Amino acid sequence: GFAQIDHHRAWRQGLPEVVYCAGKTVEQSVAILLRQAQVGSGPLMGTRAPRAVYDHLEGRGYDFEYDDEAHLVVLRRGVPEPQGQVLAVSAGTADGPILREAEVTAELMGAKVERLIDVGVAGLHRLLGHLDTLYAARVIIVAAGMDGALPSVIGGLVDVPVIAIPTSVGYGANFAGVAPLLTMLNSCAAGIGVVNIDNGFGAGYLAGLINRGGCP
Amino acid sequence: GFAQIDHHRAWRQGLPEVVYCAGKTVEQSVAILLRQAQVGSGPLMGTRAPRAVYDHLEGRGYDFEYDDEAHLVVLRRGVPEPQGQVLAVSAGTADGPILREAEVTAELMGAKVERLIDVGVAGLHRLLGHLDTLYAARVIIVAAGMDGALPSVIGGLVDVPVIAIPTSVGYGANFAGVAPLLTMLNSCAAGIGVVNIDNGFGAGYLAGLINRGGCP
Amino acid sequence: GFAQIDHHRAWRQGLPEVVYCAGKTVEQSVAILLRQAQVGSGPLMGTRAPRAVYDHLEGRGYDFEYDDEAHLVVLRRGVPEPQGQVLAVSAGTADGPILREAEVTAELMGAKVERLIDVGVAGLHRLLGHLDTLYAARVIIVAAGMDGALPSVIGGLVDVPVIAIPTSVGYGANFAGVAPLLTMLNSCAAGIGVVNIDNGFGAGYLAGLINRGGCP
Amino acid sequence: GFAQIDHHRAWRQGLPEVVYCAGKTVEQSVAILLRQAQVGSGPLMGTRAPRAVYDHLEGRGYDFEYDDEAHLVVLRRGVPEPQGQVLAVSAGTADGPILREAEVTAELMGAKVERLIDVGVAGLHRLLGHLDTLYAARVIIVAAGMDGALPSVIGGLVDVPVIAIPTSVGYGANFAGVAPLLTMLNSCAAGIGVVNIDNGFGAGYLAGLINRGGCP
Amino acid sequence: GFAQIDHHRAWRQGLPEVVYCAGKTVEQSVAILLRQAQVGSGPLMGTRAPRAVYDHLEGRGYDFEYDDEAHLVVLRRGVPEPQGQVLAVSAGTADGPILREAEVTAELMGAKVERLIDVGVAGLHRLLGHLDTLYAARVIIVAAGMDGALPSVIGGLVDVPVIAIPTSVGYGANFAGVAPLLTMLNSCAAGIGVVNIDNGFGAGYLAGLINRGGCP
Amino acid sequence: GFAQIDHHRAWRQGLPEVVYCAGKTVEQSVAILLRQAQVGSGPLMGTRAPRAVYDHLEGRGYDFEYDDEAHLVVLRRGVPEPQGQVLAVSAGTADGPILREAEVTAELMGAKVERLIDVGVAGLHRLLGHLDTLYAARVIIVAAGMDGALPSVIGGLVDVPVIAIPTSVGYGANFAGVAPLLTMLNSCAAGIGVVNIDNGFGAGYLAGLINRGGCP
Amino acid sequence: GFAQIDHHRAWRQGLPEVVYCAGKTVEQSVAILLRQAQVGSGPLMGTRAPRAVYDHLEGRGYDFEYDDEAHLVVLRRGVPEPQGQVLAVSAGTADGPILREAEVTAELMGAKVERLIDVGVAGLHRLLGHLDTLYAARVIIVAAGMDGALPSVIGGLVDVPVIAIPTSVGYGANFAGVAPLLTMLNSCAAGIGVVNIDNGFGAGYLAGLINRGGCP
Amino acid sequence: GFAQIDHHRAWRQGLPEVVYCAGKTVEQSVAILLRQAQVGSGPLMGTRAPRAVYDHLEGRGYDFEYDDEAHLVVLRRGVPEPQGQVLAVSAGTADGPILREAEVTAELMGAKVERLIDVGVAGLHRLLGHLDTLYAARVIIVAAGMDGALPSVIGGLVDVPVIAIPTSVGYGANFAGVAPLLTMLNSCAAGIGVVNIDNGFGAGYLAGLINRGGCP
Ligand SMILES: Nc1ncnc2c1ncn2[C@@H]1O[C@H](COP(=O)(O)O)[C@@H](O)[C@H]1O
Ligand SMILES: Nc1ncnc2c1ncn2[C@@H]1O[C@H](COP(=O)(O)O)[C@@H](O)[C@H]1O
Ligand SMILES: Nc1ncnc2c1ncn2[C@@H]1O[C@H](COP(=O)(O)O)[C@@H](O)[C@H]1O
Ligand SMILES: Nc1ncnc2c1ncn2[C@@H]1O[C@H](COP(=O)(O)O)[C@@H](O)[C@H]1O
Ligand SMILES: [Mg+2]
Ligand SMILES: [Mg+2]
Ligand SMILES: [Mg+2]
Ligand SMILES: [Mg+2]
Ligand SMILES: [Mg+2]
Ligand SMILES: [Mg+2]
Ligand SMILES: [Mg+2]
Ligand SMILES: [Mg+2]
Repeated sequence: GFAQIDHHRAWRQGLPEVVYCAGKTVEQSVAILLRQAQVGSGPLMGTRAPRAVYDHLEGRGYDFEYDDEAHLVVLRRGVPEPQGQVLAVSAGTADGPILREAEVTAELMGAKVERLIDVGVAGLHRLLGHLDTLYAARVIIVAAGMDGALPSVIGGLVDVPVIAIPTSVGYGANFAGVAPLLTMLNSCAAGIGVVNIDNGFGAGYLAGLINRGGCP
Repeated sequence: GFAQIDHHRAWRQGLPEVVYCAGKTVEQSVAILLRQAQVGSGPLMGTRAPRAVYDHLEGRGYDFEYDDEAHLVVLRRGVPEPQGQVLAVSAGTADGPILREAEVTAELMGAKVERLIDVGVAGLHRLLGHLDTLYAARVIIVAAGMDGALPSVIGGLVDVPVIAIPTSVGYGANFAGVAPLLTMLNSCAAGIGVVNIDNGFGAGYLAGLINRGGCP
Repeated sequence: GFAQIDHHRAWRQGLPEVVYCAGKTVEQSVAILLRQAQVGSGPLMGTRAPRAVYDHLEGRGYDFEYDDEAHLVVLRRGVPEPQGQVLAVSAGTADGPILREAEVTAELMGAKVERLIDVGVAGLHRLLGHLDTLYAARVIIVAAGMDGALPSVIGGLVDVPVIAIPTSVGYGANFAGVAPLLTMLNSCAAGIGVVNIDNGFGAGYLAGLINRGGCP
Repeated sequence: GFAQIDHHRAWRQGLPEVVYCAGKTVEQSVAILLRQAQVGSGPLMGTRAPRAVYDHLEGRGYDFEYDDEAHLVVLRRGVPEPQGQVLAVSAGTADGPILREAEVTAELMGAKVERLIDVGVAGLHRLLGHLDTLYAARVIIVAAGMDGALPSVIGGLVDVPVIAIPTSVGYGANFAGVAPLLTMLNSCAAGIGVVNIDNGFGAGYLAGLINRGGCP
Repeated sequence: GFAQIDHHRAWRQGLPEVVYCAGKTVEQSVAILLRQAQVGSGPLMGTRAPRAVYDHLEGRGYDFEYDDEAHLVVLRRGVPEPQGQVLAVSAGTADGPILREAEVTAELMGAKVERLIDVGVAGLHRLLGHLDTLYAARVIIVAAGMDGALPSVIGGLVDVPVIAIPTSVGYGANFAGVAPLLTMLNSCAAGIGVVNIDNGFGAGYLAGLINRGGCP
Repeated sequence: GFAQIDHHRAWRQGLPEVVYCAGKTVEQSVAILLRQAQVGSGPLMGTRAPRAVYDHLEGRGYDFEYDDEAHLVVLRRGVPEPQGQVLAVSAGTADGPILREAEVTAELMGAKVERLIDVGVAGLHRLLGHLDTLYAARVIIVAAGMDGALPSVIGGLVDVPVIAIPTSVGYGANFAGVAPLLTMLNSCAAGIGVVNIDNGFGAGYLAGLINRGGCP
Repeated sequence: GFAQIDHHRAWRQGLPEVVYCAGKTVEQSVAILLRQAQVGSGPLMGTRAPRAVYDHLEGRGYDFEYDDEAHLVVLRRGVPEPQGQVLAVSAGTADGPILREAEVTAELMGAKVERLIDVGVAGLHRLLGHLDTLYAARVIIVAAGMDGALPSVIGGLVDVPVIAIPTSVGYGANFAGVAPLLTMLNSCAAGIGVVNIDNGFGAGYLAGLINRGGCP
Repeated sequence: GFAQIDHHRAWRQGLPEVVYCAGKTVEQSVAILLRQAQVGSGPLMGTRAPRAVYDHLEGRGYDFEYDDEAHLVVLRRGVPEPQGQVLAVSAGTADGPILREAEVTAELMGAKVERLIDVGVAGLHRLLGHLDTLYAARVIIVAAGMDGALPSVIGGLVDVPVIAIPTSVGYGANFAGVAPLLTMLNSCAAGIGVVNIDNGFGAGYLAGLINRGGCP
């Protein structure tokens, strides 16, 4: 029977439940998040949520927080003690919201998360001044728009997995993130896994799995 | 100074040296591989190598092997005892050579590698009959062409990292692997990192890092 | 002469007249629908219609209904007794409006329509728990955005025609439905016909033809 | 358990087994086809097979035929009495091989198949001279390259399902079949399901399902 | 010297001056049109002009008209007696504004213009009922969105030049007019010249040249 | 009835019959051309024909010629006295074969054809030294690859129709003619009709219609 | 150490600091510009800045100016005496804002800048009347949308570097600047460097480097 | 008159004549090169020339050389004393032939050329070990395939013009150079001009102009 699968789902309960709020009404997002809060005991997150979602969740009995930069509604509940080391890196400040989404996701999965921001390759000294931080990580998330060159440089410096997030930051022949996406898929450095454009959640989730999964 | 970087490179010596033989003459490939065999003591691999490369390497003092399916020249030297569990999965038999490239790469990085082939989603029972194998893996590599749907299904069944390789298997609106690439980037399941079309080496390398890196 | 064609058109009168309201003013849509209501005796439908179209149609002598989910104005008139079995399936809740457009279209063509929603491949147990429903259908409509993998899985389970609708649900390298469109065109499963992105009407119409046409 | 699925596969035995020979060696194709011939009792087909596959199959105890136009190896065994009516239409002679692949597939599924060839829209009288043939069909397959306009015209004349196959016939801004693919997806006529570029097998299979499936 | 060119410009004075108002402020459009009205004596046109442009031109001493459908400001001045026969055809009513832009342009160049609207190929009898009108034309403009199939059908019926305008009418895999553009470039019928998507002006101008130019 | 259409086809007999030999065997091309030679009395042409087609046609009773540059088999029979003036212009010598296909097509339709070659915009003096030739034409065909800028410059100098042929001459971001195709569709000059990439026949046909059609 | 790089950065201080204000709040832009004004002594620029940024900067102790055409906030401080000759050319008036961004950037880098506007290739006499201006430049910036043909023509007339800026001016198959981008990359004239669509800053910066860099 | 232009062409005689031999027969290439050798006195080059072109040129009275790496036929005649400093950089060895084409072109224009090869960003120490070489250049040419990230890194280190050449080195989602082309157009570093994919000649020519042009 499919009990195997049910069992599997149970085993997975340490992972956060996530609601993608874009394209849902505030009412729908609130209802889903409240129901999840009631039936579960682990962490919760709503991504791409307008502040109104948070406003409606306040005073309903759960300690939701709102992250203004990444537009996240978060309930930090049942999160294990932070362990390992996920490093979250951005090429420019405009990549911040997407990187933040990745960071919070990884944190909810029990990762200790460091950040290194605005270290794009056009000013290499910014990155090279933090080699120790790079070398300390167990997995590195890199968000970059424009030319998307940063994961190639970082991938060549470290020997831990790099999760690359192309962001839609750019204009003209950037095509809303296609340019950095192709750069990352074609990276000369090995050890890089790519997620969809602007998919901070996906990158944080994968980094979280890598960070914890390897240490049974 | 850049000693940090040199130090880093030294620290990295457990990783295999890899020569991409496509677009090199047989002579060039042979020369580079022999030189690497002489200066190093670790494993070596030449990818997309015609058999002639192997023929020229025989009797030169090193135990090179040739993999007919994946067109690999391999020197299994200084490879650590296999540990962990990398599972290599293909949707169809035509994805075999690319998956094999990934497997050998992971093996050279010290991974124990299992395989599960021809389990594409159009015949779901083939996959569902091997749930135990899926659940036993620490990281899963999935190669698929055509619709590229297999990583989405596997990603929904497990909670370990999935490395997805789109292959150029298909025709018409497949666009030599673009269709499965987009499928994998847009996967509904979380925890999936994507590499370039037909990049078996890159997937095996990333899986190898994840398999060993997490267990200090 | 062209009487052959006229004859043909007459024979076709059991099919619904459909007005595509997007890009028409409310006045235009209302006028066309009222005129059709007057000259014909069969079912009518306005797709992608703002509620204002319905508001103007109320109290004009016809029993128009409004479907809030799919933004349809519908006149269920002269619809034959439901027969056969069309199954309408969605991968996610966001595919709902497009699927609903397909369902209503099929219903107006005389089909009995069942639905199975939110059964995307990332949580396979949701689909596999309803195999009986799948096996009972004479034709299956599947709407999916994101990776568009659901028709491949369903097509591998059944041996009736599957009509696949790629939806524009997704972001980044989804390209407003191109990703699932390519997935569906490249499906490993046979027996799948694809319609345009978000073309719920076209899928419902084709399913309606298949459902009734085969049983003379 | 998955017995439901096994049961389902058994129920499906009336359908032909099909081997896609492109990208397989002659030896591989021959071996697979022979094995299928031994274990089953239904019809068999190898698509995109060089004549050498047929040559190796001769004198092995099965009545394989070879279709020179479509490069098919076919074993017409256990095919039910032809019933219903599938009409196979091509816009130009160059679409012939793809259409033929569709026809044979449908025949192996028990369909009676008629054909109407070289009736592209640039010479409309060729099509309009055969309206009776069009009206007699239960399902129509239309293969067209170049502008791919034929399914739109046929779809407007009939009220049975139309399966449209874009072919890679054309040059320049045809992009190997992308132009007719887009034309067909955007058809102004309803009731059209599209398959992948040059996917004659897929169209024939879908037409076969529609032709037989509707009449339990 | 460049007198040759100046001479040429003078010789060209029968052609209308045209201002593309999209992307200009109302003030800029009005100023340019008034200045042209003052210095010249021939016809004038502002395309894609909001009504406010017309409002500001009223009472300034010139008989400007406004075309609500095509958003044109027109000054019919010094237009020669209509001659020849330009036929303007649309596939659907939504192509109307673009076709209208073409018609007015041709009229200002001295063409007699007829129109045949909403005769798309999905209802072929609509077109075939007007063969006489088709045969009477010296040049035919055809505007079509969606599948863009109409020029192929018309081009096969007549032996005068056909100017095809792809319109951005459609959705999904229409890509804002790319689908009909490709259809028209790949037309099986000969004698078709294509202009940019939605370029009614360009089509009308070319038709105007053909209509008058051939009869010195 | 459709006699109207038959009548129409008869009326059209002054136009050349054209066989597209690419993708046909030599035998097929020869057979079709001979049959056309027997049943008709007008001009004939085979495009993209290998010399072998011509070799098989020699000594069969018809005065076929072979054009080595454009790979044309031509039978100049029943061609009216050349009239009007078609000017055929190329940007570079590599555009020659395509331009030649256009020239011969126009000639077979009764046009007097002049040519001006290798006058691309990167050496403007080449074009500006021939303004008289430009001004003498009734219709101008312009073939250009690379940047495809020549029709824009010529279109600004003349006031007769310009038929623009993008050629597949170029490399890199030329995309086999897509770059000049887009340039021509976006031309700043009015009065330009575009045909498919490398479609010399289509351009010559359209120019032939314009050259003769306007003078009843 | 990385002192080499620091040294390098110091050496570069003559170049303007530039803030890309699109996608920043007015407050953020103002804060960054003010801080830069305080810590540095050279020129400053904010690109794509709404007027409100300028309004908030007034009366804060620095002589900021606002450029209404290009939406620039500029502080002309510490700019060296203009030298050399940069010529800024536009094809149409709509390219003005992008060209202006390039001009101001070059000026802040110490260049003397001339301009030649609205000299697109569809009216060649406009350009040819200014050959002296063209020949006087040391480097030429050319901004063009639509067909993007102007750099090809200018590149063929001069033997100084040409910096080509494709602008997003156009519609339909222009694809927001892709058409002129491809034209420029495929230019038949040599000596042309291309920047991103609408990247006036990048072009001005490169022209500034060329204008000054060559004269040590 | 156009004497201005003639004068201009005369003034330009210091620049090399270049023949693009791809798509020309050996005979054509030889004939053109010999004729140019006879009528001129400056340097000559044939790009993408098979060795046979060189073989036919030997013993014809001119000192042609052949470059095996870049497939160039070169006549170094009348080349001024090398001056300035052009630095030619490649990311990988496979970019060598394209870079070589650029180098020779620049040399023929009188530039002193240095080279720095195989310094791609995945091994940053290779580049950072040569900062002095980077800082000594007046203009830098950078050829890179795969991810095309190298110009971004170099552009951030220097303040001289960088000419970026995307090469077609790569596979999968590289799309024959489109990936590095987009990377370079979107570079975060300023001061970068991009040429067409694989256009070594264009880059060398532009670098040659910059190298010499700035120092009158
Ligand atoms: N099949 C492959 N796909 C992608 N990258 C590869 C492959 N094989 C080798 N490589 C990479 O290419 C580098 C070798 O490049 P090369 O210097 O050209 O031999 C290796 O260090 C690997 O990172
Ligand atoms: N010409 C074809 N086009 C598309 N799919 C095909 C074709 N021929 C066979 N197939 C499918 O490919 C499967 C065989 O794949 P394989 O296991 O590689 O032989 C069959 O079950 C069919 O579903
Ligand atoms: N070079 C060409 N490019 C485009 N269309 C052509 C060309 N040569 C012939 N044709 C067209 O193709 C038709 C012949 O197609 P077919 O029946 O395949 O010989 C002719 O009627 C022409 O309209
Ligand atoms: N490898 C190359 N890439 C781009 N353009 C080239 C190349 N080689 C030569 N050219 C250009 O092509 C022109 C020669 O074209 P052609 O008249 O066909 O020989 C030269 O004047 C150069 O401007
Ligand atoms: Mg920054
Ligand atoms: Mg298989
Ligand atoms: Mg859901
Ligand atoms: Mg034909
Ligand atoms: Mg209509
Ligand atoms: Mg030339
Ligand atoms: Mg202008
Ligand atoms: Mg290397």
